[in-house]
Amino acid sequence: MNALGKHLLLELKDCNKEVLNDLNLLREVLLSAAEEAGATVVGESFHKFAPQGVSGTIIIAESHIFLHTWPEYGYAAVDIFTCGDTVKADVAAELLMERLESKDPTIIEMKRGVSIS
Amino acid sequence: MNALGKHLLLELKDCNKEVLNDLNLLREVLLSAAEEAGATVVGESFHKFAPQGVSGTIIIAESHIFLHTWPEYGYAAVDIFTCGDTVKADVAAELLMERLESKDPTIIEMKRGVSIS
Repeated sequence: MNALGKHLLLELKDCNKEVLNDLNLLREVLLSAAEEAGATVVGESFHKFAPQGVSGTIIIAESHIFLHTWPEYGYAAVDIFTCGDTVKADVAAELLMERLESKDPTIIEMKRGVSIS
Repeated sequence: MNALGKHLLLELKDCNKEVLNDLNLLREVLLSAAEEAGATVVGESFHKFAPQGVSGTIIIAESHIFLHTWPEYGYAAVDIFTCGDTVKADVAAELLMERLESKDPTIIEMKRGVSIS
């Protein structure tokens, strides 16, 4: 099935709560994930919430990685959206699950822009 | 069903191709969508690709709006991710479909962080 984009939606439960509340560490993790996946970073934006939680995105030339964390629940929602065949989204997903220390991760894969001709 | 986040995935086909390639206009549209939805903008990042296409995100206090455009196909992928009950994600979705002039829009709604207790 022809698609412009591949979109991985990660539901990361039972993560390390301290990691989920550390903006600098999460930024480093997202940049590492992009690098390991072979992506080219072109923009980023991170925000720390009070009393807790982090939202962050990096825009990559081949699309984006997005993360929202709820340290109080040990939960992170992560999206990895890629287009083309050069970026290894699965590698980025593996790294994020490992670095956030999720003991109960699930991944949904969606195809975006299907049947565009 | 209890969920931390509501995630709308918009597949906007048959859009106005000139709009899809205009970074400044798309930025204004995303900010308007956030404002109309009652969201609080806390960060943003936009990037224009060569020869065409735009990626942009705004991080809102209640989560994010993300957009990728492929002017050559008249297609835009838009994500609206919200948490809490104060942001009207549907209002943002309607505004985006209208401003990008999509003649063939579809929306998928996902719940994120389900059954976190």
